[in-house]
Amino acid sequence: MLDQMTAIMAETGMDAVVLVPGANFRRVFGKDFHQMERPLAVIVPRKGEAVAVVPQLELGSFREIGFRCEVFGWRDEAGYQEAFDAAGQSLPQLRAGARVGVEGQRMRVFDLLALQQAFPGVQFVDIHASISRIRLHKTAEEISRLRRAIKLSEAALEATLSEIRLGMTETEIESILLRNLFSHGADGLSFAPIVAAGDNAANPHAHARSDYRIKAGDALLLDFGGTHQGFSADITRTFFVKQVSDYDRAFYEAVLQANEEGRSIARPGVTAADVDDGVLRVLENSQFSAFCRHKTGHGLGLDVHEAPQIMRGNRQVLEPRMVFTIEPGLYREGEAGVRIEDNVVVTETGIECLTSFPRTLRLVG
Amino acid sequence: MLDQMTAIMAETGMDAVVLVPGANFRRVFGKDFHQMERPLAVIVPRKGEAVAVVPQLELGSFREIGFRCEVFGWRDEAGYQEAFDAAGQSLPQLRAGARVGVEGQRMRVFDLLALQQAFPGVQFVDIHASISRIRLHKTAEEISRLRRAIKLSEAALEATLSEIRLGMTETEIESILLRNLFSHGADGLSFAPIVAAGDNAANPHAHARSDYRIKAGDALLLDFGGTHQGFSADITRTFFVKQVSDYDRAFYEAVLQANEEGRSIARPGVTAADVDDGVLRVLENSQFSAFCRHKTGHGLGLDVHEAPQIMRGNRQVLEPRMVFTIEPGLYREGEAGVRIEDNVVVTETGIECLTSFPRTLRLVG
Repeated sequence: MLDQMTAIMAETGMDAVVLVPGANFRRVFGKDFHQMERPLAVIVPRKGEAVAVVPQLELGSFREIGFRCEVFGWRDEAGYQEAFDAAGQSLPQLRAGARVGVEGQRMRVFDLLALQQAFPGVQFVDIHASISRIRLHKTAEEISRLRRAIKLSEAALEATLSEIRLGMTETEIESILLRNLFSHGADGLSFAPIVAAGDNAANPHAHARSDYRIKAGDALLLDFGGTHQGFSADITRTFFVKQVSDYDRAFYEAVLQANEEGRSIARPGVTAADVDDGVLRVLENSQFSAFCRHKTGHGLGLDVHEAPQIMRGNRQVLEPRMVFTIEPGLYREGEAGVRIEDNVVVTETGIECLTSFPRTLRLVG
Repeated sequence: MLDQMTAIMAETGMDAVVLVPGANFRRVFGKDFHQMERPLAVIVPRKGEAVAVVPQLELGSFREIGFRCEVFGWRDEAGYQEAFDAAGQSLPQLRAGARVGVEGQRMRVFDLLALQQAFPGVQFVDIHASISRIRLHKTAEEISRLRRAIKLSEAALEATLSEIRLGMTETEIESILLRNLFSHGADGLSFAPIVAAGDNAANPHAHARSDYRIKAGDALLLDFGGTHQGFSADITRTFFVKQVSDYDRAFYEAVLQANEEGRSIARPGVTAADVDDGVLRVLENSQFSAFCRHKTGHGLGLDVHEAPQIMRGNRQVLEPRMVFTIEPGLYREGEAGVRIEDNVVVTETGIECLTSFPRTLRLVG
């Protein structure tokens, strides 16, 4: 753990890094804590011993991590600032002129304000991307957890499809999907599922409606995933209810072709941008180029959205054990949307697609 | 909405407030957004029109809110800083010397850094508590959602108890509980449930173990809740497996008495601290005073932990339509823990206890 942090400090020129609960914390310490009203922070200086600020209530769990450092506990009644101040006093090397790296997408403002007060004159710098790079390559154990999350999610999808009937509402279908995820062994949700039909499917981040009943000819998009031991499946499939027009079929096939292109381009040595460019080229060369709305995908792991972002301009070279989504979509506002999302892991020679749910156009209901 | 924000600015002396997705955002706008790698912020100045910075992908959902303001969209490829800068230029009244209030427990550091760059010289102040006061009194509709969340969670608990058998692991029981929550209609989880037996129950924030099988005489603590339309149940009950010693029975009864005391003290006009003092007094006057570890409870609503905190020193006077937990606990390290948690709403004359699951000591398995 300290080796990783030392390397990050060397690379970024920081005098210390601070970790707060979240995906990086879990990767480093093998355990996570809820981020609620009680701040918890581990401060690792370049020189000297690490210190931690820990709510009294979490001291037992924190000890279980087995990380050797000085711990400043704090109680609800007293508040956390004194513990941060004590941490500051125990690290006198971090004073005016020092630079301390933090996880900008994860650390909250009240943590930062407490640190700023405890470490006067120190400059806090967002090095989220550098710290998160420790999660860029997945371990065999992590990939096996992800496989399990995907497998149970796909089984839940199949079970859900068999229960879908014409006239159900989006929220009814969402509820069936949730029940099936947990009856197939999910230990959590990757995110609140998207279940969207008809015009709602044209909204990439739709919310299920309780007042819309699916009807023949609707696209029905499900974007969802269960978790297993911290790892999240993130799968999208789009179906049509009872029947599909020739136009919608062509619309679907364009997305499918883009998805296939992405899976065929991705391999070690090409960049994330190469994958995105290839996928978008298929969509942009189709008759549906006007309906393209978003990038190709994102990394997937302890965070549902993480590096590598599969998007224009990202020169990150793909390497074995990186995991990401390939999820092209097309969205005709007010009419329909189609997205087909797979989860892939880069191998020594190409990729392995971890999702195996069929992509052939399927009618449901 | 603007009235609420104007009142907050008047009270705190701020020149503007910024809202980011989360519980306050949802209460104000009736809708929420995921906080991931894409910042979204609504800036409401004391004088002049509000502006918003919104990811391109969320523009459709943001429009559905129906909030009139200038919107600066941004695309993944371009990044968000330009949109923040444009927002800054459109609010020239917010310059050096101005004070802008933010939600410190919710806003992340990278949002703050983007704002600081876009509004040079402005001081950003954590007024999380003041902003969150808009959620202190629940509406009838909100209480009815919470009732539904509690009802389904209690039904899931009863179903789970009927499936528990001697020798099951904590994670097996957790998995049964999750399945039952969703088969009873939960649309999400309030938090990752705590299922802890024996010595693990003595850890207030325990994680379920896959290698510990429940045995006769174990305490079995379940702290869990399903959500319904944004509102979270938060229920704890502690059972004993097959049998209970006289000592453990007395231990349990001490917690139950403290729980009853809390429910009998709470009413309009008393303070949160009064409730906590009364509850802790029961525990401290018992033979188990050494095993007291935490405050009595917390507010419950769109956030699972929110105001009013039921703790020592909190002079907040209880008023009708406030909702909070009463959850005394005792923890004998290495042996057992008991917590009994109810969710109550303050009425005109006292409280209504929304949780109705029996508290009488019960043997399971």
